[in-house]
Amino acid sequence: MTIKTMYLDIESLKEKQTVTVEGWVISNRGNDKIRFITVNDGSSIANLQLVIKGELNAKFAADAISMGASIKAEGELHLTPEAKQPFELIVNNLVLINNVAEDFPIQKKETTLDFLREIPHLRHRTNLFRAVMLIRNSLMFEIHKYFQTHDFINIAAPIITSNDGEGAGETLLVDDESKDYFFKQKAFLGVTGQLHAESYAAGFKKVYTFAPTFRAENSHTSRHLAEFWMVEPEVAFYELKDIITLADDLLKKVISNTIKNYPAEMEYLNSLQDGQLIPTLEKFLSKGLTVMDYRQVVEELKPHADKFEEKDIHFGMDLASEHEKYLSDKIVNGPVAVINYPKDIKAFYMYQNDDDQTVAAFDLLVPGIGELIGGSQRESRYEKLVKRMTELNISQEPLQWYLDLRRFGYAPSSGFGIGFERLVMYVTGVSNIRDVIPFPRVAGQVKM
Amino acid sequence: MTIKTMYLDIESLKEKQTVTVEGWVISNRGNDKIRFITVNDGSSIANLQLVIKGELNAKFAADAISMGASIKAEGELHLTPEAKQPFELIVNNLVLINNVAEDFPIQKKETTLDFLREIPHLRHRTNLFRAVMLIRNSLMFEIHKYFQTHDFINIAAPIITSNDGEGAGETLLVDDESKDYFFKQKAFLGVTGQLHAESYAAGFKKVYTFAPTFRAENSHTSRHLAEFWMVEPEVAFYELKDIITLADDLLKKVISNTIKNYPAEMEYLNSLQDGQLIPTLEKFLSKGLTVMDYRQVVEELKPHADKFEEKDIHFGMDLASEHEKYLSDKIVNGPVAVINYPKDIKAFYMYQNDDDQTVAAFDLLVPGIGELIGGSQRESRYEKLVKRMTELNISQEPLQWYLDLRRFGYAPSSGFGIGFERLVMYVTGVSNIRDVIPFPRVAGQVKM
Repeated sequence: MTIKTMYLDIESLKEKQTVTVEGWVISNRGNDKIRFITVNDGSSIANLQLVIKGELNAKFAADAISMGASIKAEGELHLTPEAKQPFELIVNNLVLINNVAEDFPIQKKETTLDFLREIPHLRHRTNLFRAVMLIRNSLMFEIHKYFQTHDFINIAAPIITSNDGEGAGETLLVDDESKDYFFKQKAFLGVTGQLHAESYAAGFKKVYTFAPTFRAENSHTSRHLAEFWMVEPEVAFYELKDIITLADDLLKKVISNTIKNYPAEMEYLNSLQDGQLIPTLEKFLSKGLTVMDYRQVVEELKPHADKFEEKDIHFGMDLASEHEKYLSDKIVNGPVAVINYPKDIKAFYMYQNDDDQTVAAFDLLVPGIGELIGGSQRESRYEKLVKRMTELNISQEPLQWYLDLRRFGYAPSSGFGIGFERLVMYVTGVSNIRDVIPFPRVAGQVKM
Repeated sequence: MTIKTMYLDIESLKEKQTVTVEGWVISNRGNDKIRFITVNDGSSIANLQLVIKGELNAKFAADAISMGASIKAEGELHLTPEAKQPFELIVNNLVLINNVAEDFPIQKKETTLDFLREIPHLRHRTNLFRAVMLIRNSLMFEIHKYFQTHDFINIAAPIITSNDGEGAGETLLVDDESKDYFFKQKAFLGVTGQLHAESYAAGFKKVYTFAPTFRAENSHTSRHLAEFWMVEPEVAFYELKDIITLADDLLKKVISNTIKNYPAEMEYLNSLQDGQLIPTLEKFLSKGLTVMDYRQVVEELKPHADKFEEKDIHFGMDLASEHEKYLSDKIVNGPVAVINYPKDIKAFYMYQNDDDQTVAAFDLLVPGIGELIGGSQRESRYEKLVKRMTELNISQEPLQWYLDLRRFGYAPSSGFGIGFERLVMYVTGVSNIRDVIPFPRVAGQVKM
């Protein structure tokens, strides 16, 4: 029986049961008589303690096996119900597969996150990154599970596209070495799968994408990446209120299941946040989502204007990250969906409300992060959409296919995008987005 | 109760039960007295028949509702156990949401696949593409489910990378509009997530990627795309035989579950292949995988040399698609894993066998498609790997991080890549890869 430490079913373990474990050494201490090696196999932050005695101990003397080495051990389980890890392995066979060279940069002593960002291929061999990547995996799969059990189908929106996003000029170009238009025209890395998802929602009704998206963002903040994953559901026959309900329900299921899937990891991350992480998440899980009109948000923020760098709080302004955070952190003290934004600060495809000033958009803001989700009901009226594109100087021809959807059996369609890494930040409490994706890409940096 | 046609639980349906359906019109026929509209909601290729009488029929006269229109209907269920679809809806309220303009290109008359490739945003509103995309979704989710229930974690290998793949020069470049090295160095779209996955396997043991990969392939074949999805598991402590067992088990579980998930769609696709599709898949499911040494393959192909364009069958040759197909179609008559290829036709990172001529690689070939999976045990010996890179003129410096993995607690690591679109082709029987991905990208073409 080969075990993974996390999946050990403690109830079914028997004293003296023979098991084999493969993994990496976390610590190694002992003397001439007895040696304790803790080993981790990546399935959990929990380690298994190996007990090594007699000849075997003599063979692997003192410091012969270093932290990080790969080993394989066979032995008999010894139950230790009173200890933190309720079993240990009395080893009768131990194989050192590959020790580590002296310059292995992961050592017992504390290292900085900055330093670890320089070694993205190794940093997951620390407790923090082990926990974060396990949580990330859980969130990923729980999102797929949620959609698949709610009648959605996943669609692969293209990564390479002829659409330059929303014309913001923050796109990355793709070409071959000859720089001679491999695709016979300018091609970009997609900033969203939404437009393509809309075409599939008209026919499949409930669809979602879960794929990398890109932005040639030059700002070096702790919240932006040039390459990040987005989750973008799009639902035909849904209006704004329906899609907000979906976003709230999705988040709650995905987060609560993840807390259940990885209790040890969540406890560990919670301890790094002075015990504030899990209570914050649980408060969100137990409360209805606050929905607030943009106009009301402006009124709520005005009395606090002096606290912001941008103090001119008025209808028409785009909320900066400082305003978003203040709203969710201080005023609402929890996640809040802001709805009905001024049309001039939102994308051309959003449904134009009757007031002629706002669109049926929403942003879901969460404490500590700010915007986690952005979405809207889409403009279903062909003429209104064309007019808006003209106002914004968006050329109609490349998007004629998108406009045509409105002429071919369209139904009210609504959707949103979750910045997946921001969700991982929210659930893990990690404050820099570069630490929740294995190989972060930002302007001026593409390691490995 | 809003229904999705596929999810109707026939056992629980009650005569006269009131239900609401939203979807798109497939056909509309009738006269002054009675009208039959079939509607599809994208959850299945199965349609629901609406029966419209009296005033309501008068209101939506003759051809007022065209194929493709979006509608919403409310009515009472009428069970018709003797009919093909064992229920119909006696409609008492019908709303036409959006009709189709006359130039809606999807019509009842047969259209060619070539024509449909020109309208990737609409072609899913045909039976064929509806079935293919549902199957694609099922395969996607079953792959995630398989890995997640077998202790794997998903890792996001980067899309943008500083590695130019295997130096084959078939990579796409990424830059911003200024063409001034947004990433301060040359950056490419990844051709594989394997190298990065290896770094995570050392620590997490069982990992997989499921993400888009890219190749600046100029060949216009029915089996190649510039953008395609790859599934790449990588497992530490696994050798070649283990990873082949994994590939076989994964494929069998994923395919058999998909046949169960979408029986109507598989039957339909089977009918398009003259009833040959499902029997072929079931034969694969019921048989052990054939494993054949490359040397033996050469011997088996030699007597058939005159059937090929490349007739010089000899040790050291790369198998062309014609050889691969002949082997699996005619000689093995089913999937076959070819192992131990000559090292000179395989990648630098593969484990060098003791014969000094071959590497511990495998390709899994399937009838009709050829190569579906390629994989290997990785070279774990630092010195051997460096030597091989030198022989192949691969510069060491950019891959030093990858080499270093061998110095920091490496364990035998093995993995493979599944060309996801080829899997969809195999399971659906569709013969052109451009028809199994929503928005296909090939050289010279990037629609929408």
